[in-house]
Parts: sequence; structure tokens; C-alpha cells
Amino acid sequence: MKIAFLGCGIMGVPMAKNLLNAGHEVIVWNRTSAATAPVVEAGAREAKSASEACAAAEVTFVMVSTPEAALAVARAAKDGLSAGKGYVDVSTVDAKTSSEIAAIVRSTGAEFLEAPVSGSKKPAEDGALIFLCAGDEALYGRCQAPLETMGKAHFFLGEVGQGAKMKLVVNMIMGSMMGAFAEGLTLSEKCDLDPDTLLQVISLGAIASPMFALKGPSMNAGKFAPAFPLKHQQKDMRLAIALADELAQEMPVAAAANELYKRARRDGCDDEDFSAVLKAVKK
Amino acid sequence: MKIAFLGCGIMGVPMAKNLLNAGHEVIVWNRTSAATAPVVEAGAREAKSASEACAAAEVTFVMVSTPEAALAVARAAKDGLSAGKGYVDVSTVDAKTSSEIAAIVRSTGAEFLEAPVSGSKKPAEDGALIFLCAGDEALYGRCQAPLETMGKAHFFLGEVGQGAKMKLVVNMIMGSMMGAFAEGLTLSEKCDLDPDTLLQVISLGAIASPMFALKGPSMNAGKFAPAFPLKHQQKDMRLAIALADELAQEMPVAAAANELYKRARRDGCDDEDFSAVLKAVKK
Amino acid sequence: MKIAFLGCGIMGVPMAKNLLNAGHEVIVWNRTSAATAPVVEAGAREAKSASEACAAAEVTFVMVSTPEAALAVARAAKDGLSAGKGYVDVSTVDAKTSSEIAAIVRSTGAEFLEAPVSGSKKPAEDGALIFLCAGDEALYGRCQAPLETMGKAHFFLGEVGQGAKMKLVVNMIMGSMMGAFAEGLTLSEKCDLDPDTLLQVISLGAIASPMFALKGPSMNAGKFAPAFPLKHQQKDMRLAIALADELAQEMPVAAAANELYKRARRDGCDDEDFSAVLKAVKK
Amino acid sequence: MKIAFLGCGIMGVPMAKNLLNAGHEVIVWNRTSAATAPVVEAGAREAKSASEACAAAEVTFVMVSTPEAALAVARAAKDGLSAGKGYVDVSTVDAKTSSEIAAIVRSTGAEFLEAPVSGSKKPAEDGALIFLCAGDEALYGRCQAPLETMGKAHFFLGEVGQGAKMKLVVNMIMGSMMGAFAEGLTLSEKCDLDPDTLLQVISLGAIASPMFALKGPSMNAGKFAPAFPLKHQQKDMRLAIALADELAQEMPVAAAANELYKRARRDGCDDEDFSAVLKAVKK
Repeated sequence: MKIAFLGCGIMGVPMAKNLLNAGHEVIVWNRTSAATAPVVEAGAREAKSASEACAAAEVTFVMVSTPEAALAVARAAKDGLSAGKGYVDVSTVDAKTSSEIAAIVRSTGAEFLEAPVSGSKKPAEDGALIFLCAGDEALYGRCQAPLETMGKAHFFLGEVGQGAKMKLVVNMIMGSMMGAFAEGLTLSEKCDLDPDTLLQVISLGAIASPMFALKGPSMNAGKFAPAFPLKHQQKDMRLAIALADELAQEMPVAAAANELYKRARRDGCDDEDFSAVLKAVKK
Repeated sequence: MKIAFLGCGIMGVPMAKNLLNAGHEVIVWNRTSAATAPVVEAGAREAKSASEACAAAEVTFVMVSTPEAALAVARAAKDGLSAGKGYVDVSTVDAKTSSEIAAIVRSTGAEFLEAPVSGSKKPAEDGALIFLCAGDEALYGRCQAPLETMGKAHFFLGEVGQGAKMKLVVNMIMGSMMGAFAEGLTLSEKCDLDPDTLLQVISLGAIASPMFALKGPSMNAGKFAPAFPLKHQQKDMRLAIALADELAQEMPVAAAANELYKRARRDGCDDEDFSAVLKAVKK
Repeated sequence: MKIAFLGCGIMGVPMAKNLLNAGHEVIVWNRTSAATAPVVEAGAREAKSASEACAAAEVTFVMVSTPEAALAVARAAKDGLSAGKGYVDVSTVDAKTSSEIAAIVRSTGAEFLEAPVSGSKKPAEDGALIFLCAGDEALYGRCQAPLETMGKAHFFLGEVGQGAKMKLVVNMIMGSMMGAFAEGLTLSEKCDLDPDTLLQVISLGAIASPMFALKGPSMNAGKFAPAFPLKHQQKDMRLAIALADELAQEMPVAAAANELYKRARRDGCDDEDFSAVLKAVKK
Repeated sequence: MKIAFLGCGIMGVPMAKNLLNAGHEVIVWNRTSAATAPVVEAGAREAKSASEACAAAEVTFVMVSTPEAALAVARAAKDGLSAGKGYVDVSTVDAKTSSEIAAIVRSTGAEFLEAPVSGSKKPAEDGALIFLCAGDEALYGRCQAPLETMGKAHFFLGEVGQGAKMKLVVNMIMGSMMGAFAEGLTLSEKCDLDPDTLLQVISLGAIASPMFALKGPSMNAGKFAPAFPLKHQQKDMRLAIALADELAQEMPVAAAANELYKRARRDGCDDEDFSAVLKAVKK
């Protein structure tokens, strides 16, 4: 399959390499050319522009880091798109931006898929991402091979916007869980129970989770190197609660957790890992 | 090892059988004699009274279902205890009751361990319980063999009361997590995302947990057969928050979740599974 | 003073009449002409258009019921405005709309004041409104006479947007207070204390307030005829919390109260009085 | 009327003096004799013991500062009580202590009233207290004169315990209101609105209350001299929430406010005024 890959950051590089390794023909482009080097070395052809890349491919994948960049790339890619082609944006963007990108893409006759991923650098390298797809179902059908190469699972969730919403729901649960976990670690410490023992007890029971196993030890060590920055977790809590608000649905646990993240932000934890919400509880 | 086992309920029977299967000599007793049958069939000797059982054993294990029963059994057992013997209460009781039992046991010269378990019927059968032990550390040392037989892990947590506290901390996290999960399932449904797909997405990511995997499908099916009754989960939330209150430590996420459980209780869910908190969110 | 008054609804009519009674010359306009009748009868001249009204006056007051209407009126009025004139919008609009109106007005050389009011029909009739003014301070100075006629107090709060923010802060406190009050009424009833006696006790103590005195009896009677619709109270809670969110400031009490209002909305109380939050607590 | 008055503290002294000024015959007693001086100077007779005071009077009023003291006084008074006499405890005690005192008093044949007061030093001096009475209604009937002398209102609320509950309900509302007020003051400051102007705006509208008027200026000045210590407010929140918990009634706003008070306690505000909850919001 001829695939264009736009965006060669921490996530994009290993994803594009996995496509190459699986035998796909990859045309790569990045806003700053230097970043494409590792993908080109791995066998990709470099395009001079986003639109040239799209023009040369059946399907284009885009992985950039902000909604603004995603929109700019879509505009730059537009001239290379046409009926019969597909454009899959796997960046994480808000519903409004996703709709704008969809409109740009579809105006060319091409099909569109939003496909935000769950998973970070390591799963990207391991081909173990999860794709939350929404948009044109026919395109989803045609993308089975590359999605299987890059991820361990992919879902089709309906109209454009539903992928973003699924991600918000999951991240809302995650944010509340982390708030609950931070409270538990704090309470154990306050009543002279070793927080590391608490981690062991949790790891053996019904509430064990990869997140607790991964974050617990560094939280107990007071280390909060950002894997998922706290400001982004708080943003997702805010957006999820706003989504519920539009639907007149209360979310009291998420709302209480959100206030903790806001307190952590006020106290300067914006760029620490979201597990730094522990500091807001412990103070 | 000569072991007395007092209490032959859903948990006690498989635990005592596992001790027999591991080669221990077991003297069994239950308040109503009929319940001892499966353990006697498996090779245990039946004692006529709790004190007779204790008198005949090095160590006594007790597994009953309420604090009141645990206290009554300790009183009934007292005359069979003496220096050199050990008494391990693996029932889940509050800190005050545990202290009373400790005082009764220690007044005879015997040693005491509170050892509430994490895990229900299936782990009891599989010898996969988790014991949260606190009290006399020497007795803990002598109980390694039976604890390893009945459980997959055991911890020594300090003075009497610390085992109960550890269990409260874990259950508090669990209660908040379930509240967060209920909110997520509700939000997904309200925005036309299939709640079963949400379960799949969750199962593949960082927040996957046995609890979500086990409870999710029945929650989506609107089924709440009680494995852990909601009124008990709410009681544990209340006690954990009260424990934090004594320590002047806020727990805002747990407090918000606790209010949801109270609403579920008001709406008649006392004896349903604690996952019925979903009804309080959705309603 | 020659004053244009745009908008003859429940609030506008008594406000305009009070201006007439105080000796001001009033030119009135309303989108639908019929509504101006009571003001014309009281001595006002009717203009054929918003811009004609503005052209004939030194200062224009606007009182309409939605941000959309306020923006439409500003556009319709634009051609009648010019340097030396003033435009005072006393409608309640969001910060973004207020800025847009300010830009339209100021583009003509005229000065602008946002001046949302606190108070409803009765205070409007009694000239007892409170004006939360922000924008051009010179215009504020020139409006002392009409503001004193229509209200019992007026404040200058700074740049455009600050009036709206002050109103949000007050309404946020009000919403939380009402949530707390609803909980107290519910708890008194649940423990067999007469909720009417509770009202009496409250009325005599430190927490007495006109709101409790006014709303309490109808709440106890289960009557929620809308003075301030619940959906608007919830919107103000949402906006106040969002404002705090931008400032990374937690508002946990308001957040908990907001969830109650959302529950009330889900249960169909959008158009009842905001005191119907009682139903969400009691239910 | 011959009245015994036990307890000559900040509240007791002015209350007893008001009884004297109204023409009642007062026999006074205090655990430490020195404190009775101002009441004796005003015309009271001093008794050598609590029981002697009760024996000489038709009705005994008790005003001490802790549940422990109230219980000790009742035990000391017991021998002076008998059928036909009345014992009115106007201290603030918990329901359990109140029941114990009731049992002691009634065992002598005397009648009992719990009558916790709303109001502090100034209302005590002014005869403007509010009595929340519960217990023997006949005694309540016979106490009209002294209650009218010492207070501006009194209520009969039913069985022993109902007075204490009414006080908890009122204090719960007060605690949540103060939390909401603290959030509003903080938000105004964060968005550059003068908190003193906010106080003025509030004072003119529907949510004006004596508490906001009294506490607001000192809160804005960062002064928290204890009129009602924060630890007592938090205790009342905790007890009110526990009362609701027994009744399976959620109180989400109070629960969120309670967590703020706990944070303030953690941060060392136990003995400051309860308005110091502002510090927990502002940090």
C-alpha cells in the first residue's frame, strides 16, 4: 500500500518505521525536514510538501502534536487530495478542529478518518497503539492493514467527533482514578502504612491496573517526570465534564477530581506528570 | 501444624480444606454444627466448643461474617487459649472490635493477629487470598505455612488496627474507582458510544483492571447480583473518610463518591452489588 | 437628559418609565412595536428604528433578554451612534458578546458601558436595581443621574468584561448557597424536624438572607414557579467555574453544587425556578 | 420564679444577670467559685454545690462549654433534683451526651429539656439568644418566662436529641455558605475584582446575610480571630454529614465544604475562626 506519513515526531517516527517494516511503501514529510531522517534511512521516500506526499499515496496518515498543527497540515495537504484517496488524522484534537479538518479533506472528494490513539512512545514502537476511529467507514475498512501494523486494536465509533469523545471518556475515568489513587497513597502514609506496601497489596487484587503499577513507585518517590502532562489531563477532565454538561449529565466524582487537578495547576504542576496531583492532596 | 478453624461459612470451608490438603491437622468448630460437615468429610476433627478447639491447637484461625460474631467467638474461645498459643482472626472487623478481641486473647497469654483478607469465594478456594496482618509479629512468623497455603500473599503491617486500616484504604480507592467507572459508562452511553466498546478500549489500556473486566459487562447489562454489597462498600467509604478526618486529611474524590453510594442506598440499592452505584449516576 | 431606551420587556418597561418620571426625555424603541405602548403612554417618544433612537439621544440604554438580541440591537443601533454619545447595555451577556458589542459601539466613536443588573421585575419597578458597570469610565460618570433613578446602587468595576464577571461571582455564591439550603431543608425533613421551623430558626440568626426568606416557604410547599430559571443558574455556575478554571483556581463547593443543578436539569427542571435544585437533593 | 443557674462563663454570666434583671430569684453555682462574683454582685445567691442550687430552685439552667462538663454537672446536680423540678441544659452537646443527661435527670423524677442556643456573647448580653428546645414539653411550657428573658425566640422541637439536630442542620448550612463565600471572595480577587466591592454588591442583594456582613471585611483583611473556632465548625459538618449518612441521604455540597475545612485543619487553622476556610481555598 502506498502510504503518506505526515509528521515525524516522537510518535510519528516509530509508526512510520513500523509501516515500512510491514512492507508498505511510505512517502514521508515533516514541516522541518531534518526530522524525517530516521524514516528516510529506514527506506521511506521524502516528499517536498505535504500535498506532494498526499498526491503520491492512496492513504495519508498524520501525527502532529497540536490541533493548530493538525489544521495547518490539512490545509497544506489539501491540493494533493482527491476522490478515491483517504486522509487519517491520528493526532489528538478537539471535536471542532476535527470537524474543520474533515470539511477540508472531504471538500476534495477524499475520505476522512479521525483516529486519535491511546498509547505513547513505547506502544508506538511496539506497534501496540489503540486507534479510536470515526468518520468514513469505507476508509476505515481500507485501512485495516496499516492500523493492524501500527496498533494492537482499532475501533470504528461512528461520525467524526466520536473518536475524540471516546478518548475523553477514557481519560476522564483515568483522571478520577488517579485522584482516588493519590488519596489512597496519602491516607496510607498518614496512618503509618507503608505506601509501597499499599502498592503491593493493590497489585494483587481486583483494582490492580498498569497505571498504578507504573506510576505508583515514582509517586511514592516524589518523582513526576511528565509522560502525560498534568495540564493536559486537567484539560481533558474539563472537556469531559463540559461534554456531560451539554448532555445535562452530572459527573460528581470527575468534578471533585478536576478541582484537585486545578489546585495542582495553581500550585505550579502544569508541566509535571498528571500523577503530581498527589502533591495537591498531600500538600 | 495443629490448627483450629472456627467458622465454616462460604469462606471458611474452602480455607479449612486447603489447610487439610496441605497436610495440617485441623480441628473445626462452627456455631451451628451442620456447617462443619464438608470440612469433617475432608478429614478434620470436630470440636464440641470453640474453647475445646483452641485448647487442642497451636494456632486458631477464625473466619466469621460480622464484628459481633467475631467478638462472640473470641469470648467463647477464651478458655482454650493460653501462653504459647496463637489466635488469628481473618474476619473483617472494625478497629474497635479488633482491639477488644486482641485484649481478650492477650489476657490469656496467647498471641493475637488480625488478618482481614482481600478476596472472596473463588480466591478462598484457589488458595489465592491476600492477608493483611497486624498484631504480634512473632505469631505472624509462626503462621507462614498456613498463610502460604490459604493465600497468595500476606503482609505484616504493625500494631493491631493496621490491617483493618489497610483494607479501608484499598476499599476506599476501589469505591472511588467504581464511581469514576460508573460515570464513564454513563457518559459514553449519553453520547452514543457503545458502553461495551468502552469496556474493550479500557481493557487494552493503562487503566485496565480486573474489577472493570469483571463488573463492566454485568453493569452494562443492568445486573447487580451482590458479590460485595453496596451498603458495605458505602460503610467502608464512610469509615475511610472518618479515618482521614481524624488525621485532618481531606479526601475530596472519596467524599464525592461516598455521596453517590449514599444516594444509591437512599434509592434502595443496599443489598445489590456495589457496582449498582451506576444506577445513582444514570438515573 | 435625552435618553434612548431600546427593549421594552418585563424589565425595560418599568426602567424606562422610571426615567420618564424622573424628568428625563425618553425615546423608546422595541423590535416589535406593540411592546412600546406602555412607555409611550407614559410620555416617551417612539423611534422608527434603533439607530434613529440613538441618533436623537445623548445616551442609549439597552435591556434585552439574550446575548444574541443584544448583539443584533447593537448592530441595528450603530448608524445612530457617534463621538460624544454613550451606549449602555444593561442586559446580561457573556464576556465575548460584551466585547463584540463594545467594538461595534466604539468603532463609531461613541463610548460604551456594560452594566448588567442584579435584581428582577420588582426592583426594576421600585428603582432598586444594582448596576455592575464596566467599560468607559467617563460615560459612567455622565450616567450617574439615570443610574440613580433606576437603581439603588451602581459600581464601576474596570474594563469591559468585569461587570459580567462580578455578576458571575455573585451568582456562583448564590447557587452554592441554594444548594446548601436545599440540603439543610432535606436533612431537617429526614430527621423529623419541621422544615418551616428551620426557616424560622434561620431567619433569626447569622445566616438569614432575603433569598432564604423568599424562597424557603415555596420550596417547602414544593412550588418552583420560575423567577430565575434553573437552567440559567446552572449556566452561571458553569461559566463561573470555567472562569476559575482559566485562572487555575479550584472551586470545590461550587463544583459540587453545579453537579446538583445538572442533575436537576437531567430530571427536567430546566424551566423551573433554580430553587428546584431541592428536588435533585430530595428525590 | 426561683431559678438555679449552673455555669458562669462568657455566656452564663450575662444570661444569669438578665434573669436577675427580670426579677427572678437566682441561685448561682460554678465549679470554680471565683467566676460567680459578677452574678452575685448583681443580686444572686451563691450555692455551695450544684445539688444545693437545684434543691433550692424550681428550674435549673446549665450553661457549660463541653459535653464532658455538662455530664459532670448533671451528676453533681442529681441529688438536688426531684419530681416537680425542671433541669434545662442550654449547653451545646452531642445527642448521646444529651440522652445520658436526660436519663440522669429523669431518674430523679425531675423533667428535662435540652435547649442548645444559637448566638454568642453579644446576643447573650442583649437577651437575644435563640433556644432550640427538646425533651419534656410541660417543662418547656413552664420555662416561657425565663426563655423570653434570655432570648428573642425559642422553639420546641420534640424528643431529646431534636434540639441538637436542629443546631447541626443550621450549622451545616452555615458551613457550606461560608465555603461558597470563601470561593467567591477568592475568585473575585483572582479576576481583579475588588473583594470589598463584592461585599458591597452582596450586601445589597438577595444573598445578603449578617454573617457575610460581619465576617467579610475581616476575611478580606486576612484576620481570623476566633468567634466560632474552625475545628468546631468542621466537627459540626462531620456530625451533620454522619446524621445524613445514617438516614442514607446524600449531602454533596456539605461534603465538598467539609473537605475544605479538613484541609484548613491540616494546615493548622483549628483554633482560628471558621472563616479561615478562606485560606484553604486561596492557599
